[in-house]
Amino acid sequence: MTPEQSVVASAVHAWKLNLERADKLFSGLSEQQLLTEVAPGKNRLVYLWGHLIAVHDAMLPLLGLGPRRHAELDAAFLTGADKTVDELPSAAELNRLWNDVNGRLLAGFNDFTAADWAQKHSAVSDEEFAANPLRNRLAILLSRTAHVAYHHGQAVLAPR
Amino acid sequence: MTPEQSVVASAVHAWKLNLERADKLFSGLSEQQLLTEVAPGKNRLVYLWGHLIAVHDAMLPLLGLGPRRHAELDAAFLTGADKTVDELPSAAELNRLWNDVNGRLLAGFNDFTAADWAQKHSAVSDEEFAANPLRNRLAILLSRTAHVAYHHGQAVLAPR
Repeated sequence: MTPEQSVVASAVHAWKLNLERADKLFSGLSEQQLLTEVAPGKNRLVYLWGHLIAVHDAMLPLLGLGPRRHAELDAAFLTGADKTVDELPSAAELNRLWNDVNGRLLAGFNDFTAADWAQKHSAVSDEEFAANPLRNRLAILLSRTAHVAYHHGQAVLAPR
Repeated sequence: MTPEQSVVASAVHAWKLNLERADKLFSGLSEQQLLTEVAPGKNRLVYLWGHLIAVHDAMLPLLGLGPRRHAELDAAFLTGADKTVDELPSAAELNRLWNDVNGRLLAGFNDFTAADWAQKHSAVSDEEFAANPLRNRLAILLSRTAHVAYHHGQAVLAPR
C-alpha cells in the first residue's frame, strides 16, 4: 500500500466507522423513541436522522456519483427546522433511505483513487478550485464525517 | 500539489476547522457558564473542554511528537467522570492548556508528509500494523477530528 493509498483508505474507513456508530443508534429506535428531543426544546432524534440522510443524499452529486435520490426529504429535514412538517417518514422508511443513500455512496468511494478524491467537488468552480485546491472531494467526505459525529454526539444525549 | 499532498492537506484542514469551531465556543465561556450541563444530568461544558485537551495532549506521543505535556488533567477529565474531582483548572488556565496542546500538534502536523501520516502510530505494534496498515497516524487525526465534532455537537446544546 502506498502512502497515497493508505491515507485515502483511512479517510473512507473513518467515514464508515462514524456511520456505523450512528447506524447502531438510529436504526434501533422505535417510532416513539424517534420523537424524543435530544435535550429540552432541541431537535428530535427523527429530525437528526432524516437530516443526516438528506445531507448524505446531497453528497452524491457533490462527489460526481449521480443525481440526488431523495430530495423530497429536504423540506422536512434540511431546509426546514424540526417540527415544521407534520408528516414524516416511518422508522422503517427512514431505515431504508439511510441504507440506500449510504450504500450508494460507499459503492462510489470504493472506486475512487487518491487522484479522484483530490479532484474538485461539483459545487466549486474551476477558478475557485485553482485558487484553493483543498476544495476537493475529500474535503466533502471529511466534512460530512465530522457532521455525522457532531449529530451522533447529540443523539446519544437523548433520554431513553 | 500532487493528489497525495492534496488529501493530506485536506485532512489537516478539516482538523483545524473543527478545532476552530470548538475554540470559538469554549474559549468564550465564563467560569459560571463552564459549569452548565449540556443536557439535564449530562457532562458539564468544563468537563468536555478539559476532556478534549487531555485527549489532544495524548495525541502527542501517539503521533511521535513528543511526550505528554499535561497528563495531570487525566484524573479530572479522562479517567474519571465529570463531577468526581472537585478542584478544576480555571477558564483562563484551560484556555492556556488548550492553546498550548493544539499549537504543539499543529506545529508537528505542518512538518508531516503523506509518508509520515501513513506510518504506524505509537500504540500499535509492528505486527499489528503489518496486518492492518490503516492503523496509521492519519487514522488518529481523523478519529480525533470526529471526536472534537462529537463533543462540540453536545456543547452547543447547553442552555445559555
